[in-house]
Amino acid sequence: MADVQLKVLVGRFEAYAEAYFAELDWPPRLLAAARHAFFGGGKRVRPALALLAAEAVAGLAGPALPWALAVELVHTYSLVHDDLPAMDDDDERRGRPTCHKAFDEATAILAGDALLTEAFAAVARIGDAMTAQRLVGLLVRAAGGAGMVAGQVADIAGVGDPVALEAMQRQKTGALITAAAEGGAIAVGGEADEVAAIRAGARELGLLFQITDDLLDAEQDAEPDGRSYLHHFSRAEVQARLERTAEAARGAFGGLGARATPLVAFVDRIAHRTV
Amino acid sequence: MADVQLKVLVGRFEAYAEAYFAELDWPPRLLAAARHAFFGGGKRVRPALALLAAEAVAGLAGPALPWALAVELVHTYSLVHDDLPAMDDDDERRGRPTCHKAFDEATAILAGDALLTEAFAAVARIGDAMTAQRLVGLLVRAAGGAGMVAGQVADIAGVGDPVALEAMQRQKTGALITAAAEGGAIAVGGEADEVAAIRAGARELGLLFQITDDLLDAEQDAEPDGRSYLHHFSRAEVQARLERTAEAARGAFGGLGARATPLVAFVDRIAHRTV
Repeated sequence: MADVQLKVLVGRFEAYAEAYFAELDWPPRLLAAARHAFFGGGKRVRPALALLAAEAVAGLAGPALPWALAVELVHTYSLVHDDLPAMDDDDERRGRPTCHKAFDEATAILAGDALLTEAFAAVARIGDAMTAQRLVGLLVRAAGGAGMVAGQVADIAGVGDPVALEAMQRQKTGALITAAAEGGAIAVGGEADEVAAIRAGARELGLLFQITDDLLDAEQDAEPDGRSYLHHFSRAEVQARLERTAEAARGAFGGLGARATPLVAFVDRIAHRTV
Repeated sequence: MADVQLKVLVGRFEAYAEAYFAELDWPPRLLAAARHAFFGGGKRVRPALALLAAEAVAGLAGPALPWALAVELVHTYSLVHDDLPAMDDDDERRGRPTCHKAFDEATAILAGDALLTEAFAAVARIGDAMTAQRLVGLLVRAAGGAGMVAGQVADIAGVGDPVALEAMQRQKTGALITAAAEGGAIAVGGEADEVAAIRAGARELGLLFQITDDLLDAEQDAEPDGRSYLHHFSRAEVQARLERTAEAARGAFGGLGARATPLVAFVDRIAHRTV
């Protein structure tokens, strides 16, 4: 049941995103590069979370669709720029060539810039102006120089101990995941205590996502580096941390009552994910 | 008199920008790279235009300061990314090392991303939520994949004839210059006909700025390439175009009455600029 609801929500998101991209009046090559990155088989974790949070507090997800799109546009731009030769220098992502490989480096830089800029147009589509203004601020705090970009700077500089690792991951991936859920709740007019519960649960979920990421990476890679919890802790310790974090997320979301059941189920889905 | 007012407005802008940057909670190296680019001796044409437009329609510039900052943040990010090795590959700008030379390429990419993101936080500082929402949309249209970024794509692809050159320049530099002025008028609650007059004049001013840019470049460079009006037209033709464009800009702004005198004087300043 919860899985069906998740599938329906992600399907609505894909349709909304397709319609949005269809209206963009961008140069063909720029649009092709942006589409290559955006419709590249991502799991849509952040949009799903935004829409599930909206359902959990208001029983409807529609008004949160522009926000879900904005967050995914930001996530996509960050991957395009992170993959660049001057950054992580990755040739492939999800089994396909990265944007600068499929196109070229200049186009990838510009496609990232355009995706980031467009995210704010999506936020501005939210009907209520005060909500839109608030969400612009939230998105900047999560994505900008004190959020995701700061995390990327810390990642490049390297993290020496688990405290620095967690701080880096809270900024690099946690901030946007938390904002995705929080903004979903705000977009549907959630009360302050509901928004706080969503934020608290999503903060744990962001960490959980990173822990499972490290566990999945470890199944493929030879030796986890300093960016992995498995470099700093034993597997049993990481597993215990995973369960503790999942429990904290379920607890925060569960307090919202029956409407939050799919959101609680989403926590389990992330905790047990295999991709 | 008009020059004194311009100096006062730019001084207010610098103080506002300094105070804004002082509050940014960014990693030191990221902030240093952003400051290097932002406080790099730019002429502040776009902020000046935003504030002069606000003065022209409402007799006050203060409420337009966040908008002026937003536009200059976008302009700055675009220079940082344009200078990258994969783009124009410039080592110097205004006699100083470009951002990726003074720091490194990854830091320059990230500083550009953070500056662009921050621009929207500045817009969201505008007190009236409906105005802020409208200005977010305006900034995306001017700066994004259908505006400045599209112009950069066209510039990289190369322009073959003067029609394509003008179309490229309208997007690459004209769109943000026009939006700077239009947003300044909107930020102070300008009426629709006032905003339209500002937009019309600023469109001409954007072209004028580009024409004078080409003339100044030609004084230094050996041979103007296809990106210059002097590649496509004789010097006399370019001079005639300059005067025609300046006259059109003065005409549009002049219709706003006495308050627009400094804005009209700004047109002359651009037309006769030597740097």
